[in-house]
Amino acid sequence: MALPPLDDTIAAIATAPGTGAIGIVRLSGPASYAVADTLFASAKGALPSELPPGRAVYGTVTDGRAPIDEALLLTFRSPNFYTGQDVLEIQTHGGPAVVRGVLDACISAGARQAGPGEFTLRAYLNGRLDLAQAEAVLDLVNAATDAARRNASLGLSGALSHKLGAIQTDLTTAYAAVQAAFDYPEEGVPDAMLTEPLTRAAHEVDSLLATAQAGRLSRNGARLAVLGRPNAGKSSLLNALLGYQRSMVSATPGTTRDYLEAPLVIGGVPVTVIDTAGIRATSDHLEAGGVELARAVARGADVRLLLLDGSEPLGTDVAELVAETSGAAVFVASKSDLDHAWEDEDLRPFIGAAPLVRVSAVSMEGVDELRTVITDLLIGDAATSELWISNERHASALRVVSQRIADAIDAPHDVAALELLEALNALAAVTGRDGVGEETLASIFANFCVGK
Amino acid sequence: MALPPLDDTIAAIATAPGTGAIGIVRLSGPASYAVADTLFASAKGALPSELPPGRAVYGTVTDGRAPIDEALLLTFRSPNFYTGQDVLEIQTHGGPAVVRGVLDACISAGARQAGPGEFTLRAYLNGRLDLAQAEAVLDLVNAATDAARRNASLGLSGALSHKLGAIQTDLTTAYAAVQAAFDYPEEGVPDAMLTEPLTRAAHEVDSLLATAQAGRLSRNGARLAVLGRPNAGKSSLLNALLGYQRSMVSATPGTTRDYLEAPLVIGGVPVTVIDTAGIRATSDHLEAGGVELARAVARGADVRLLLLDGSEPLGTDVAELVAETSGAAVFVASKSDLDHAWEDEDLRPFIGAAPLVRVSAVSMEGVDELRTVITDLLIGDAATSELWISNERHASALRVVSQRIADAIDAPHDVAALELLEALNALAAVTGRDGVGEETLASIFANFCVGK
Repeated sequence: MALPPLDDTIAAIATAPGTGAIGIVRLSGPASYAVADTLFASAKGALPSELPPGRAVYGTVTDGRAPIDEALLLTFRSPNFYTGQDVLEIQTHGGPAVVRGVLDACISAGARQAGPGEFTLRAYLNGRLDLAQAEAVLDLVNAATDAARRNASLGLSGALSHKLGAIQTDLTTAYAAVQAAFDYPEEGVPDAMLTEPLTRAAHEVDSLLATAQAGRLSRNGARLAVLGRPNAGKSSLLNALLGYQRSMVSATPGTTRDYLEAPLVIGGVPVTVIDTAGIRATSDHLEAGGVELARAVARGADVRLLLLDGSEPLGTDVAELVAETSGAAVFVASKSDLDHAWEDEDLRPFIGAAPLVRVSAVSMEGVDELRTVITDLLIGDAATSELWISNERHASALRVVSQRIADAIDAPHDVAALELLEALNALAAVTGRDGVGEETLASIFANFCVGK
Repeated sequence: MALPPLDDTIAAIATAPGTGAIGIVRLSGPASYAVADTLFASAKGALPSELPPGRAVYGTVTDGRAPIDEALLLTFRSPNFYTGQDVLEIQTHGGPAVVRGVLDACISAGARQAGPGEFTLRAYLNGRLDLAQAEAVLDLVNAATDAARRNASLGLSGALSHKLGAIQTDLTTAYAAVQAAFDYPEEGVPDAMLTEPLTRAAHEVDSLLATAQAGRLSRNGARLAVLGRPNAGKSSLLNALLGYQRSMVSATPGTTRDYLEAPLVIGGVPVTVIDTAGIRATSDHLEAGGVELARAVARGADVRLLLLDGSEPLGTDVAELVAETSGAAVFVASKSDLDHAWEDEDLRPFIGAAPLVRVSAVSMEGVDELRTVITDLLIGDAATSELWISNERHASALRVVSQRIADAIDAPHDVAALELLEALNALAAVTGRDGVGEETLASIFANFCVGK
């Protein structure tokens, strides 16, 4: 995969597909103004190239023969805007035929249809953004929740790049120290030059890595499997968590007849709740297969929730049910508004110290507590971190950095120097300041939408 | 249905829903700058109210607590832009969570979520657009084809309003003339004051009305029913018209087993082709019902196409098949690359002078001619008119105008005066310059999208 050329002029529709009030076609490149001069004139008759930068000017956009629409032209000049090139935006009414007509006119006038992410790629290659910021642009556009949006916005502002810069400084200091120690072994290395910066860098890297699960889940979403016997109150619990009537609730066991997935947001993470009882119920005639499928779904979930009816005695199959909830799990006693048929300590022998919450979908008692417990299982200590590592490329690089620092700490100076050099290289690849392979760049930007 | 207030400040997402590179939130109203001052600052620290109008300024948009995104702010001041009020656009990255976050921030700062079409309604009520132009905005956004887009663009430019203005002038002249003739019956009315302007107005109105079918179809789309016996070559014909493989073609009669609808554009009109043979085939077990359904579909279509196999003798049921093609109809002899089993004159006794085209889906012979014939049936003489009446409200008003003029022409002067007054009122309602009921306005703008 090679990178596209940078020195021609690209055009793309920059607004979401479909019908909106406003649509935008964006141009970037040395011929942006020459292209726009053939198809736009301001209401006062000025051509784009005659306008000062930073203006929003009203006029008419044509396809060379007839007017397409009234339009606003936004003028930006190299090197001070997004891509670092001459950039123009043509704003029209947001009908697909209008926006498409403007793009076609730009292409007829010599622009090239931009590929995915090409505007942001140009911004990166022209030094307007580092690679971590460029990736934050993608995350920002794709953010499904406010938490993911805030995190991407922080990344775009350079907060991650800034943190990585501090780590790089510490690693560079330590690298210089071990180099010096290797060259002049008779002189000692002061702690302030080696141990302190390495310890600080290791702590910072590990703190960032501790947010990687939260970051990944906030970006990709989490899966919460709900387990329990029929009629334990799973649909009611789901509705309580959702805050509105999503699934049909009924006192008849086995009412949930579909493989049920419901989306909600818990702790800033988009969570898909999967009612595994639904899988069993649907598979009445294939009971064994249904149970196996439910187990597989539960194993693949990020958190498992076992719901037990708090108003009925614990059954003899409790141990079996608990066995399906290995890993991150929360236990819920339902119907807490009714008389309790068992106490917490009756269940503890089976679940140890795992979280147990009593919930009533009638009084909503315990629902907030349950949300808190699930949030804790999903994002843990990351809740107190402002910035989360949400990009798997960044997490992998930081894992390399962490490992190299750990290996360097007790190594002989010559080995430590090599380890620290590799740590610095892995770190540099995150922001891409010191060169990233074309292949990597191309694959990163291929995930962008066209127009970005 | 009452109109919303005009003197508060409204905000809405102006770009299409979904994910795009750029999203826009738009503000209009007296407090636009006050709202924006609470959530935007330029990179140099300037507040929106400190910026001159007509600028595109880079900065940061916040939700009052934390940054939401980097943003471009576009500044417009009353009365020179769209709504005639102070207008601001906030351009951010086009992720739904980002754009939603900016809108929420605007609303927290005192703006009201705009209803459908409220920006354009304000433009109309502030005299920036007449009603026909405002409706053209809606048509422009919804235009599905280049023809519909061109027509809406013409409407927005005021071309229709200009034509109606000329008609209004003629009617006003004639009205003054019959009034004078009634007041001073002894003096004659010169032709130049009455007959000439009335004749000219009638001609203009009828010319516009002659485009109403084309306008309606270009906006709403047309339905083309394809009739014929199984294996006459309907699927092949459809593929030839579409220019790509849409339906499965097979030499086995009755291969088309679904109720088949395929979209294409003919003569600028979005056309849905309905293969009525599919209806029959699907209804094998309910043959009578299937045939009845096919007949109903054919009757509801704008054009009916009867396909006859040109390589097989005309069957004994030709008269019956032709009977189902009343109204706008075109007859097609398929498989013209094979030996002709019958000549045109064999069919003429059944179809009269209706269009008959010989087509080969193999050599593509006749396909362009068929397109031309269908175009002619759909849009007729409107093809030579630049502007089409595409709005049913306009067409109804013009029908009233036409009828009133016709009634006025030979009426006594006192009756003619009343007729012309009603014609003028109906005409004025199109552009809305002389007042349109709130009810009408509210129902027109209710069809707009939010943000327009």
